[in-house]
This record gives sequence, C-alpha cells and structure tokens, in this order.
Amino acid sequence: MANVEETVLTYWAACESRDWARMGALLADDVVYHLPQSRERIRGRDAYLQFNREYPGRWRFSVTRVTGAGARVASWITATSDAEELPAVTFFDLDEAGLISVITEFWPEPYEPPPGREHLVERYPAATARSA
Amino acid sequence: MANVEETVLTYWAACESRDWARMGALLADDVVYHLPQSRERIRGRDAYLQFNREYPGRWRFSVTRVTGAGARVASWITATSDAEELPAVTFFDLDEAGLISVITEFWPEPYEPPPGREHLVERYPAATARSA
Repeated sequence: MANVEETVLTYWAACESRDWARMGALLADDVVYHLPQSRERIRGRDAYLQFNREYPGRWRFSVTRVTGAGARVASWITATSDAEELPAVTFFDLDEAGLISVITEFWPEPYEPPPGREHLVERYPAATARSA
Repeated sequence: MANVEETVLTYWAACESRDWARMGALLADDVVYHLPQSRERIRGRDAYLQFNREYPGRWRFSVTRVTGAGARVASWITATSDAEELPAVTFFDLDEAGLISVITEFWPEPYEPPPGREHLVERYPAATARSA
C-alpha cells in the first residue's frame, strides 16, 4: 500500500480514537476542509481540529475503501452514531511534505429510486448496504 | 498517470459522448453497478449499458478528480443536465484483465449546514461550488 494511503488510514484511526494530536500531526498548518454540499469551508489546522473536537455526538468511523497515489487519495468510510449510520466519501490532497492540505468531503444520504428502471435494477435490503 | 486512472478517464469520456460500444469495451461481462443510497444494483454489462442508454435526459459529464492505483480507482465528476448540476463520486474495482468489474456510485445532494459551527465555518456561493 502506498504511503499516501497509509496517511489516510492513520487520519481515520485518529478520528476514531479522537486523538486530535495524532490527527493534527497529519495536517498542514493551512489545511482547508470543504463540504461542497453545504458550501462550507474551514481554514487552518486549529479551526479544523476544533470543529472535530466540538462535533456533536459520539461517532465511530470504519474504513471501507482507501485508494490513491501521488498526492491524491480518496476514502469511503461509514460513520456510525447511536442514531445514524452514514457513508462519507472524502478526497485528500497532500503537500510536498506528505501533509494533508485539502480535504473535500461528501455525505450522501439515502433516496428512493426514481421510477422507470425496475426492469434493470434489483434492490437489496438496508442491512446489507454497508457491504455493497 | 497510472493505467487504471486512464481506464476511468476513458469511461467518463465514453459516457460524455454516449459511446456505449467504447464504454462496453472497458467493462467486465459480469460488471456490477451499486447505488448504496437507493440500495439498487445492476448486474451485467448488457443491463448496465442499457441503463445508461435509457437514462432520461441529456447529461454532460466533467471530471474533477481521478485517483487510484492497483485495482482500485475513485473519481469525482460533475453531471450537468438542462435542469441540474450534481456531483457524483464513484469507486471502481478492476479485474486482472484491467476491466471494470464493480462500480459503486454516490450522488450527494445539497443540504443546509446544521447550526452551531458558524464560529469555525465560512460559506461560499453556489456559483463556485464546482471549483471547491
């Protein structure tokens, strides 16, 4: 596994264990975190660590997929709280020192299939959605 | 750029030009397409090509990001129709012959930020969301 993929696995392990010092060591000083769906942006390591520290609820993170090469990595994880289980997809840009400089994250929500494709599609139960 | 990333760029170019023969040449016979948000699954190249052919509307596809290595690639694209502009994030698994054998795709929709993080977050206008 490429070193850049290891960086992202360490990032999620730090998130899971709420080890903000460990996460901070992976981030560039001027890291930028983007949420394109809500058009939100957080600038800087301190603000981003504070955002994670203050985020409401106790979330667990399990990694389904990490793939990347060079300075770019993508991950697909499942975030689980007492109330919810949500997939998240994240794109990481690494700088020349191997630190994470840009994080772009999507939180896709469930939806019902539109009509008209039943002849091609099967549906699977929610319980197995994680192992899709 | 790794060869597997080229495969995914060609996939999206074929999608953009509606060149289903070109797309089909990239797919394993038993390719499986997953949409975890709606828990839909399409099995087989023929059914998947038919799904794309029949999909309503005229969509354009522009690639923002492709990253991957080995047998796994992720892409982030923007799909645009007359009515909508939507990001999509897709994970590709390639088989030993370099053909796409599993496609897992997410279509994240816009949402409003939850309250409580205004002290850390700035919002950017919708017009620049694509270049996040």
